Amino acid sequence: MERRRAALDWAAMRLLLGSGGFGTPDRASLLSEQMQSFFGPIDKLLFVPYALKDHDAYVEGLTARGLHGGLCLDGIHRRADPVKAVEEAEGIYIGGGNTFRLLDALYELNLLDAIRDGVRSGLPYLGISAGTNVACPTMMTTNDMPIVRPPSFEALGLIPFQINVHYFSGRTYVEAGGTFQEHFGETRDDRIAEFHEVNGTPVIGLWEGGILRVEGGQYSLRGAPARLFRRGQPAVDIQPGKPVWPPKDIP
Amino acid sequence: MERRRAALDWAAMRLLLGSGGFGTPDRASLLSEQMQSFFGPIDKLLFVPYALKDHDAYVEGLTARGLHGGLCLDGIHRRADPVKAVEEAEGIYIGGGNTFRLLDALYELNLLDAIRDGVRSGLPYLGISAGTNVACPTMMTTNDMPIVRPPSFEALGLIPFQINVHYFSGRTYVEAGGTFQEHFGETRDDRIAEFHEVNGTPVIGLWEGGILRVEGGQYSLRGAPARLFRRGQPAVDIQPGKPVWPPKDIP
Repeated sequence: MERRRAALDWAAMRLLLGSGGFGTPDRASLLSEQMQSFFGPIDKLLFVPYALKDHDAYVEGLTARGLHGGLCLDGIHRRADPVKAVEEAEGIYIGGGNTFRLLDALYELNLLDAIRDGVRSGLPYLGISAGTNVACPTMMTTNDMPIVRPPSFEALGLIPFQINVHYFSGRTYVEAGGTFQEHFGETRDDRIAEFHEVNGTPVIGLWEGGILRVEGGQYSLRGAPARLFRRGQPAVDIQPGKPVWPPKDIP
Repeated sequence: MERRRAALDWAAMRLLLGSGGFGTPDRASLLSEQMQSFFGPIDKLLFVPYALKDHDAYVEGLTARGLHGGLCLDGIHRRADPVKAVEEAEGIYIGGGNTFRLLDALYELNLLDAIRDGVRSGLPYLGISAGTNVACPTMMTTNDMPIVRPPSFEALGLIPFQINVHYFSGRTYVEAGGTFQEHFGETRDDRIAEFHEVNGTPVIGLWEGGILRVEGGQYSLRGAPARLFRRGQPAVDIQPGKPVWPPKDIP
């Protein structure tokens, strides 16, 4: 346990944070390639499937669909002592689904401190979609439906900003009778502006297929653009290959 | 106060519940017409603007955009005693915006019991979007971003089922470079299925421009279709003019 009680040092943390939407062949290849270079010689990841209901099917489905990066996925739901499983892991992978359900399970199983301490000590962390949301200071920029109420919205805080996954700009459209019909709900930018009416933390909107790679205190973008939102400032678009943080380095 | 302590009698309650997306001229006309026939001789509504940040601008904007049904809107945020304002109101209108923020404010100002008791005693209730969400047993089928954490997800419970506002079926598309690109996030039906993995309450998906009119224990649909989702059963589409409840009457 002692080795996990690490102080907060952003530069010590290694994370690979995916937006989601990795189902197309190009995006699946990029994810696989990034996983291989990120995890290096590690061949087994502790997989956290709590964002979906059927945990066994989740692990099997990821491997069948080629979204496992060629690594062996060890489902934490099959371990008698999940906290110990985190402490012994060489790499951790938190998958997507419903973020409210995921964070609620992490609280229920008392896993937040174990994961946070592990990553602060260098445990490499892969999150996709909901798994990226819980790496943020809070889960307040999720797009998910509040099907359960976690005891807090505070999450792992492994990065100093929020990410909005599955980000897009502009309006959405739905297909009805062969034509595209405008949907009038709030846009994603509206929602992030509402977040900034009550919270000051910057938000990175990460387009689908995008991955944020965090190593040595560097935060760099792969696969898709992102948009940086800061309270009271105009949003800034950032292209793949460029850093998204710290804001002072953003043109 | 005594007259407000009404027992639960579904048939005593009068509600007009809109999905949202009333910005087009046809939809605005339908809403206006429904408001006039629903409120009858009442010419002033107590308006609850807490789902948006700027309350004065909200009241002014609704009137300017013709979404006030020709009625005078009396903003509750300008009243020294909001609970008393509810007790004295002849009609109440809860507007859209962010449902987490709205419900949080209703708890903060201790308004839930006053509104619930009023409606149980016949106070006519108009809700649009977030205002429809809070009329449900819980706010768990909102589409909004969790920018604040209300003390509970339990809401007014003025109807015996959940509504998902701004409902649509199928995938969404975003416009990028003049073409429509598929968005890979969970569909609305996926999200409602996730809700039913952990909650048993039926859900009515109400398309934009749709209004559910509740009077004398009848729940009938205007302006747009709806889809009824029941746990473990196939979804059923319901056309305008038809009842959406009780499920035993749905073909």
